[in-house]
Amino acid sequence: MNAIEQLKQEAALKAVEYLKSGMTIGLGTGSTAKYAIEALGQKLSSGGLERISAVPTSEATAELARRAQIPLVELSGSGVDIAIDGMDEITENLDAIKGNGGALTREKIVAARARTFILIGDERKQVQRLGANPVPVEVVPFGWRATLADLVSLGCEAIPRRQDSSAEAPFFISDNGNYILDCQFSRQFSPYAIAAEMLAIPGVVEHGLFLGMAKLAYIATHKGVLELSR
Amino acid sequence: MNAIEQLKQEAALKAVEYLKSGMTIGLGTGSTAKYAIEALGQKLSSGGLERISAVPTSEATAELARRAQIPLVELSGSGVDIAIDGMDEITENLDAIKGNGGALTREKIVAARARTFILIGDERKQVQRLGANPVPVEVVPFGWRATLADLVSLGCEAIPRRQDSSAEAPFFISDNGNYILDCQFSRQFSPYAIAAEMLAIPGVVEHGLFLGMAKLAYIATHKGVLELSR
Repeated sequence: MNAIEQLKQEAALKAVEYLKSGMTIGLGTGSTAKYAIEALGQKLSSGGLERISAVPTSEATAELARRAQIPLVELSGSGVDIAIDGMDEITENLDAIKGNGGALTREKIVAARARTFILIGDERKQVQRLGANPVPVEVVPFGWRATLADLVSLGCEAIPRRQDSSAEAPFFISDNGNYILDCQFSRQFSPYAIAAEMLAIPGVVEHGLFLGMAKLAYIATHKGVLELSR
Repeated sequence: MNAIEQLKQEAALKAVEYLKSGMTIGLGTGSTAKYAIEALGQKLSSGGLERISAVPTSEATAELARRAQIPLVELSGSGVDIAIDGMDEITENLDAIKGNGGALTREKIVAARARTFILIGDERKQVQRLGANPVPVEVVPFGWRATLADLVSLGCEAIPRRQDSSAEAPFFISDNGNYILDCQFSRQFSPYAIAAEMLAIPGVVEHGLFLGMAKLAYIATHKGVLELSR
């Protein structure tokens, strides 16, 4: 395991320490969340945790969780106790950009119903302000060109995500059957204002700005794991 | 044709009079929009209109338009010249509730990109304030119970729409693959505030409040067709 992978795992293990028997857990998607899923599976098989049920935020995470023998349930009206997920960027006050893995809508649906939402990642993800990475936006395929034009009018370049890096590859399709437009801003922007403006565009399903949602973050650095809270 | 159907048709014909050759037209969905589609088809076949292309707001409308030999196109980034659609309720200042037909998201995607959006209907649809009918809300199937709980917290009763009136019928599925929750408010509400709150709920794709969108409305009454504008 290389140094970055080791940091991801360290952050994930800290979050898993937070879990208690009997809880319902939201399982995030991506290369960092994967380590949390594996660690949860090991704690269940060793008896370190019992009576856990989990809500996966993607088909890929559901598959990982099944392999780790984690009991899965649908998200209920009462939400989950804790959700654990990675991020693309995170600020000091725990605002984040997510969606590089394409699962942002399900991730937000679960995170918004978590009594505690925990973000995990390595130190490369820390930023002073959001926007170095694109903000991924999930859009209904119908009329996507018009939705893209409206997103561009907010001051970004919006690129439809493709299934691979070739320029002719078919568009990436989310688990919800939608497209992802990656919105790269070249100027500073107010995340809360942009979030509201994006939601008001017909055709936008959800955006990757996760603002005021996380209560805790574990950031693994070469000097140890930082715990941030708000 | 009964009296109500006749009124629907009268309103639709007024809107179709507004169309000009060369235009791109958004075609609405439902029992009133149907008359506009039929009238447009007749004008095209008689030569009264030429070089029209149309964007259908549902699979059902696409099928009607194909039968009427109206050339169909996808919505482009430059939108449409005119969109014509029915509504469930309309106020004096042309705010409306739409979505009884289940096509609200595509209808809003097209209407928002119309240089002129025209609502048509019979006099029964006129209201002093919105909310006698439910506000239909399209939601992602994943986590719908949690999305429903959040909608209920806005002060409404939210009922998943089914494919027919039997209590065991499967849920209605929109053309976008989503569910519709019909949100009935028992108290007066501020449409703009509720619209923003609904959009902020993760899992909500779009709602049926069409506020500040229509420029013109033709309301057919027993005394003639009213033209309302803003």
